[in-house]
Amino acid sequence: MAISREEITDWFRELQSNIITALEEQDGSGKFIRDEWERPGGGGGLTCVIENAAVLEKGGVNFSAVHGPLPERISSALQVPPSDFYATGVSIVMHPHNPFVPIIHMNVRYFELSSGLWWFGGGIDLTPHYVNGVEADWFHSKMKEACNHTDESYHDRFSKWADEYFYIKHRRESRGVSGIFFDRLNETSEQKSKEELFSFVQDVGNSFAPVYTKLMEANHEKEFTRANKEFQFFRRSRYAEFNLVYDKGTKFGLDTDGRIESILMSLPPETGWHYDSNWPEGSEESKTISYLQTAHVPS
Amino acid sequence: MAISREEITDWFRELQSNIITALEEQDGSGKFIRDEWERPGGGGGLTCVIENAAVLEKGGVNFSAVHGPLPERISSALQVPPSDFYATGVSIVMHPHNPFVPIIHMNVRYFELSSGLWWFGGGIDLTPHYVNGVEADWFHSKMKEACNHTDESYHDRFSKWADEYFYIKHRRESRGVSGIFFDRLNETSEQKSKEELFSFVQDVGNSFAPVYTKLMEANHEKEFTRANKEFQFFRRSRYAEFNLVYDKGTKFGLDTDGRIESILMSLPPETGWHYDSNWPEGSEESKTISYLQTAHVPS
Repeated sequence: MAISREEITDWFRELQSNIITALEEQDGSGKFIRDEWERPGGGGGLTCVIENAAVLEKGGVNFSAVHGPLPERISSALQVPPSDFYATGVSIVMHPHNPFVPIIHMNVRYFELSSGLWWFGGGIDLTPHYVNGVEADWFHSKMKEACNHTDESYHDRFSKWADEYFYIKHRRESRGVSGIFFDRLNETSEQKSKEELFSFVQDVGNSFAPVYTKLMEANHEKEFTRANKEFQFFRRSRYAEFNLVYDKGTKFGLDTDGRIESILMSLPPETGWHYDSNWPEGSEESKTISYLQTAHVPS
Repeated sequence: MAISREEITDWFRELQSNIITALEEQDGSGKFIRDEWERPGGGGGLTCVIENAAVLEKGGVNFSAVHGPLPERISSALQVPPSDFYATGVSIVMHPHNPFVPIIHMNVRYFELSSGLWWFGGGIDLTPHYVNGVEADWFHSKMKEACNHTDESYHDRFSKWADEYFYIKHRRESRGVSGIFFDRLNETSEQKSKEELFSFVQDVGNSFAPVYTKLMEANHEKEFTRANKEFQFFRRSRYAEFNLVYDKGTKFGLDTDGRIESILMSLPPETGWHYDSNWPEGSEESKTISYLQTAHVPS
């Protein structure tokens, strides 16, 4: 018997809890606040947010499981007939205090229609304020490990997909060092069973805590200057632009009257925009910008 | 003979210069930097930006006059046949330091197609961090004066249009106290000559400097606390959400590969997002939020 949506939902709920435990332990001082909410149209979620902790300035680990009639705008965008839907998943964004700790994002999700059509989607991507080549390579090797367990072709395919997705077109810059991104994976698209695909999504979900706690640990005590903070605010402003202009999850949430504080928990704390920011040639800041303009540009 | 696009363009250029002079004089210390740019497809502009002046923390007064083939996406959105276009106008956004000085926005523009179709558009709206009822009323009376000179029905019509336009749907809040907004005004829509409509747009443009310098003068010396600044950052984050998610000028610019630093000069300096911000009942902050949730909600 195929795995049920209840089993998938329970696993996502447990993933949220495990990640929160790991992040609190690594942070050392902060505690997530827990905000349970109900969706008027059906289902609900648990939004867990941390603010002003030791390492994490702001972050959210959100679980939701929502259902009901699929809004017509969405069914036409997804090119599926009108029906009821069920969607569950975990979404994470972390904004650290220290400019040398990267911003990270993860999403894993399962979507099902009353017609029986289903798919998995998700991804992880890393947005360092300052790109560190060694760390970026290590991050990609960890993503590759998470993929290879299921299919050795996945990392290549899903990292290209991430390069497409996490690109800020109007800036001609990648959001960060990219990562993996995938959507609408099912038996037909992948020639794999639901169990195999769920196992892949579990590998992705399980990779998050060890990867990010390691990046927190390695960087949170690095010394930084006021100029490093200013560059962090600049990098965060690009993050906000991406999320408000392009991010499909954000758009989906705004279009379907989702719980706004859970959707927009991804937006950065202290940030801001200045006119025509630029940095001296050869500086660490300009090296990062060059990297973002070249390393993960969609082909 | 009807007024030419050259005459309109020259008047806009002069308006930019007059507004800059008035703002610099009122600010008392800051000077606008001038950034001339060319559009690869045809035309160009002059972006004038002020940062870290005495009263103004960040602001832009932009002039542009651009032309070329109309991108297909735009002609289909505007429901006009493929043709060449000519567009000129002035766009302004001001972000002051003091939380008791409001943010203001103005745009006046003229658009023409090679088919001969033309129209004027624009508007002014005020976004106080803290709503001040007396000042909002005064602002609306000034907008009404600017309208009445051409048509006594305009203020009612264009203030309703502004209520629609400057509404942040996903927050169920108005951006500020609204103002006036109008688009695609021409001989057919208004039963007025091009001269009469241009004269209306001139009245709107000319109202900007006296209105905003008065608001700067009246409020820039008011004392404020750290809590007032925090609320200002919160209000600015809403402003950024509106501009990146809804603003048609911004979207048009991003979609047509416009000059990005000129388009996004509207985004606020120091700002940020916190989870589920709220303020004690009866506080000035919560009075402002209530006002934004009720006073200018589109009908």
